[in-house]
Amino acid sequence: MKRVSIKDVAKAAGVSASTVSYVLNSTPTETISKETKQRVMDAVSRLGYVPNLNARSLSSRRSSLIGVLIPQTEPGKELMFSNPFYGELLSSIEYTARQHGYHLLLSGTKEDQDYLSIAQNRGVDGVIIVGTYPGENLNALKTLGVPVVLVDSYVKDDAFHTIGIEDKEGARMATRYLIEKGHRRIAFVSGSIRENGVNIKRYQGYCDAMREAGLPVDEQAVYSGTVDYEYGIAAAREFLARGRKQTAAFVTADVISMGLVKGLQQNHVRIPEDVSIVSFDDVYLSQMAHPALTTIRQDIGEKGRQAVQLVLNASKAKEHHHTECILPLRLVERESVCERRDDP
Amino acid sequence: MKRVSIKDVAKAAGVSASTVSYVLNSTPTETISKETKQRVMDAVSRLGYVPNLNARSLSSRRSSLIGVLIPQTEPGKELMFSNPFYGELLSSIEYTARQHGYHLLLSGTKEDQDYLSIAQNRGVDGVIIVGTYPGENLNALKTLGVPVVLVDSYVKDDAFHTIGIEDKEGARMATRYLIEKGHRRIAFVSGSIRENGVNIKRYQGYCDAMREAGLPVDEQAVYSGTVDYEYGIAAAREFLARGRKQTAAFVTADVISMGLVKGLQQNHVRIPEDVSIVSFDDVYLSQMAHPALTTIRQDIGEKGRQAVQLVLNASKAKEHHHTECILPLRLVERESVCERRDDP
Repeated sequence: MKRVSIKDVAKAAGVSASTVSYVLNSTPTETISKETKQRVMDAVSRLGYVPNLNARSLSSRRSSLIGVLIPQTEPGKELMFSNPFYGELLSSIEYTARQHGYHLLLSGTKEDQDYLSIAQNRGVDGVIIVGTYPGENLNALKTLGVPVVLVDSYVKDDAFHTIGIEDKEGARMATRYLIEKGHRRIAFVSGSIRENGVNIKRYQGYCDAMREAGLPVDEQAVYSGTVDYEYGIAAAREFLARGRKQTAAFVTADVISMGLVKGLQQNHVRIPEDVSIVSFDDVYLSQMAHPALTTIRQDIGEKGRQAVQLVLNASKAKEHHHTECILPLRLVERESVCERRDDP
Repeated sequence: MKRVSIKDVAKAAGVSASTVSYVLNSTPTETISKETKQRVMDAVSRLGYVPNLNARSLSSRRSSLIGVLIPQTEPGKELMFSNPFYGELLSSIEYTARQHGYHLLLSGTKEDQDYLSIAQNRGVDGVIIVGTYPGENLNALKTLGVPVVLVDSYVKDDAFHTIGIEDKEGARMATRYLIEKGHRRIAFVSGSIRENGVNIKRYQGYCDAMREAGLPVDEQAVYSGTVDYEYGIAAAREFLARGRKQTAAFVTADVISMGLVKGLQQNHVRIPEDVSIVSFDDVYLSQMAHPALTTIRQDIGEKGRQAVQLVLNASKAKEHHHTECILPLRLVERESVCERRDDP
């Protein structure tokens, strides 16, 4: 079956191709009779004509595409979703976009690649960037002339909309909870600590809570690696090698906690009796864990919905208004923390 | 910064815009001197011109876009990746596509929607469909004139390329393993059993293994629901309600196993002492489980790589050759099965 073209529609309706185009795009300057419009629409439905949006986007400058960029920060790493956080966020973005008739142009462009050319080539209506992204590439995105939403980035620039959580406060909440349960030696376990990223804020929140309670921040209690299960296993090994000095840990991602718990249990360290854990994210893994993880819950679904909404609102707005959206956090108590009253 | 247009390049190179277009698209019919070519390419690099691929795809009929469709079969379900299988597969597809300069147009179009208009509108170079998809919509895809790869579907139609595994044989392997370990009453736990889907094949494999061992297939031993963690919990509840009649279960997805293990453990059923489990997929969850899951491993990364490769090969091929690709399976022994020799 040959694809139905605009010319076929024109012929069937007895009008010119440009008239069909005017009708379908409702170009406001052109006056076309109601009767002609009807004839065109009848031909469209009879022939099953589907407008080619690639062609259309040339004139209307709308592609109904939202670019979603999940920068792959670990060199050579293939797995975009080794942290289920990304899968849950992308699910929510895709679902919300679809409800509004938009589709996603997905890319895991690496740090050393330039998203600008991709976005330009495709004429996206907006871009959502998840996580940290090099500053020079961000600057280049300003030339696109479409809304850019940064998710979980602390880049301060009025050219971008941002959506995030209070990472520092969340970390403070987690650490303070462990202190209230009687823990005094608390490890900090996270992915790599980058400028303008979330982990540096979470580290600051951890330090604040320790200091507020008059507790020292021990460099030897800080573990930093990659945000995946394997690093959790490695951190457990390192924890043992450093002499098992802490009775609790604040871990900045559930997926790392999963590995840490497994790695410690394999070495006969009991969770929570020997080491209590407060985690972060509340991805669905946290319920599956054994013991189920006490964690700082962020609403990942809402983050995705808001990110799409920000793109859509901004692309309709006449003027550019910088929007900053901060979502709430709360602590969910499950089974990975127990009280500790015997510590000096 | 204004976007550099093809006219800007033409002006800088002292040639017409169509010459620039001929050079960039290497239209074979046009004879352009080597010197002119050089002048155009110099202007392109000096000005930083990026061709608009939306425009280009109109003439060359190539968009460098691969449509990826993960049909959402549970009505109203928002989470595309409640089974981590999809996240791992999509990661691999995205990574492979990116290596070849392609990007993904991602959609979770529901059963009642028609992917054809999306794919047509976007002029994709090929479509990868994961899982079951209604037959009438599949037929409509034939009119697209681009390669369509069905992943994990048993639709037999030369118009489509297929990539999959031997689901029936994998299920037989899993069930036979439990029988060899001395189990005689074995439950079958899966997502919904659909025509042309993987679960009906896995059910057949389970039945074959039971029959081959002279064991009855008990309708009361079959549990079927949705492929997610919550259903695993529900299946555990149902298993107890039906009187704990089996000593082992073959579960068709790791994510269901995770819920089943949790639900049983919460009710003081020990895994594997009371109930042994062989699972399917070997997503990363299966290692995280407690106990770690013995499972039928499929190479999800390879599935994604092959799917992209099939699209690329087919879109280059002069003639249409139906390709069928079947990937191997193997059993990975971990901690969720123990021997049972006391059964009558």
